[in-house]
Amino acid sequence: MTDTPKPQSLDEFSLIRRYFHRHGHHGPDTGVVLGPGDDAAILTPPAGQQLVMTQDTSLAGRHFPDDMDAADVGYRCLAVNLSDLAAMGADPLWFLLSLTLPDVDEGWLAGFADGMFTLADQAVISLVGGDVTRGPLSVSIQATGAVPPGQALRRDGAQPGDRICVGGVTGAGLLGLQQWQQGMRSGAAIDHFRRPSPQLSLGLALRGRATACIDISDGVLADLGHILAASGSLGACLQEDALPLGSAVLAGCSEAEQRRLQLQGGDDYLLLFTLPAQESLPPGCYCLGTVEQQEGLRLAGRDGTITTLHATGWQHF
Amino acid sequence: MTDTPKPQSLDEFSLIRRYFHRHGHHGPDTGVVLGPGDDAAILTPPAGQQLVMTQDTSLAGRHFPDDMDAADVGYRCLAVNLSDLAAMGADPLWFLLSLTLPDVDEGWLAGFADGMFTLADQAVISLVGGDVTRGPLSVSIQATGAVPPGQALRRDGAQPGDRICVGGVTGAGLLGLQQWQQGMRSGAAIDHFRRPSPQLSLGLALRGRATACIDISDGVLADLGHILAASGSLGACLQEDALPLGSAVLAGCSEAEQRRLQLQGGDDYLLLFTLPAQESLPPGCYCLGTVEQQEGLRLAGRDGTITTLHATGWQHF
Repeated sequence: MTDTPKPQSLDEFSLIRRYFHRHGHHGPDTGVVLGPGDDAAILTPPAGQQLVMTQDTSLAGRHFPDDMDAADVGYRCLAVNLSDLAAMGADPLWFLLSLTLPDVDEGWLAGFADGMFTLADQAVISLVGGDVTRGPLSVSIQATGAVPPGQALRRDGAQPGDRICVGGVTGAGLLGLQQWQQGMRSGAAIDHFRRPSPQLSLGLALRGRATACIDISDGVLADLGHILAASGSLGACLQEDALPLGSAVLAGCSEAEQRRLQLQGGDDYLLLFTLPAQESLPPGCYCLGTVEQQEGLRLAGRDGTITTLHATGWQHF
Repeated sequence: MTDTPKPQSLDEFSLIRRYFHRHGHHGPDTGVVLGPGDDAAILTPPAGQQLVMTQDTSLAGRHFPDDMDAADVGYRCLAVNLSDLAAMGADPLWFLLSLTLPDVDEGWLAGFADGMFTLADQAVISLVGGDVTRGPLSVSIQATGAVPPGQALRRDGAQPGDRICVGGVTGAGLLGLQQWQQGMRSGAAIDHFRRPSPQLSLGLALRGRATACIDISDGVLADLGHILAASGSLGACLQEDALPLGSAVLAGCSEAEQRRLQLQGGDDYLLLFTLPAQESLPPGCYCLGTVEQQEGLRLAGRDGTITTLHATGWQHF
């Protein structure tokens, strides 16, 4: 919006070309007719499929630490969006990147692109467009995936009697953040915090089986609350015994702390889903409790006592 | 990324519901199976069409003035994205909105939503998802449209001999910005600056006729430079006589100033396109000159002299 041209060593167009045009995965099989460089990308959607579209913005100092390595920032910001595709049971197709940078730091850009494309290659998703602007560091990614018609996993299909399941041991995201804030820069929880793994394969496996699904960004209790509310003011009872203890990543935490991390920790990006009785639990997943008709969240202790839980999770805003 | 829950009067979920779930245009004809509120939207793409996807971020103080009315901000940020769809000859389908706000100002949000949906209704495009985060005011929009296979307008098809055409009198965007900076808040140029009109109908009319097309965000010379470079290092000669004088919006400017505004002003969001000799000029459009084999931009004066032009445009970054 400035009035005068600003000659620079590396303008927006050169930046985009240098760091973001190098990517492969373009061709008939990916549906990319025209990638970055024009006013918009041109794409052929897979015939007979529905599309799933999500967009998330990550801000430095809010969604990732200011001093996080550029490659981890690139990986993490894409992971957060892919996790939304996973939660819908979608196959990744394409993404667009809107990158806001305080200045042109080529080392940072090269690292960011490297981390982002590492995950993009793993997930087989193509960068097809976006823009670069100058301002406080911020990464906005829009990702698109495909699902067969009617098979997307939604939040609103849970039924009383369904089991409440999770795709692994939760809590590593919050523990990693706490360790980061204490100055730690290595270890299993830190690794999870830096580079969360979107559960894309699990999402595909849950198509036609899970009645509801969400990815855990706000914590098990808060995200379970979203499923229960969307499914018609249902409730749930979790079993204290069902929370796994002794996982490597939470080793060293007290039992009470493990429970707190597992139930309330955010930024895990594991899938939380509901399964009808006849469906078997996929490998690596845990069943935490059961959906009930009665509203509210309850925890059944080992001694049979029932405690009311509050779904206070992680507020991104 | 903060560690503790932040109880607030209006959290992200409530914000999204209150201001962004109200919108219509959902139903079988728009392909929206599931709109905002889940991890992602579910959409049915129009059968047999290609998709066109664009994403642009607008920052307060850079892409729009800090003190611009919220409704104009909402309108303008969507307009910028729709203009990219217009430049591809695409029919608008869906958009996602990532909104970063410094605080929860319900008056501002209501105004923003009102301006944005005013244009969304005109363009018949549906808001299907996105997110809200806290930070410096910024609006990132990803928009998707549809085109019949092979009919999208690209930058790379211009041929020597094609006429260089523009969808109206350029320069109002820059004039409006200059007037805004001088404290003016009304008038034709200010209106254009506040609420640029994406030329969606013109884009559709150019399908199968224009050999190349771009929307003018960086100025005629700079954006023409993008077409010529993409089409294989071509050049162009513009006719000084062809620049229209006496348009209402530029009235009051000297002839030299009108020429400067028309050739170098950015933020016009009119379409700039190349037409083969046999294609007639659409109504309201102007022919500015001709694509040539010889690289570089030239201006042919009334007296027959040829001046070399420099494509210094508008740098957003």
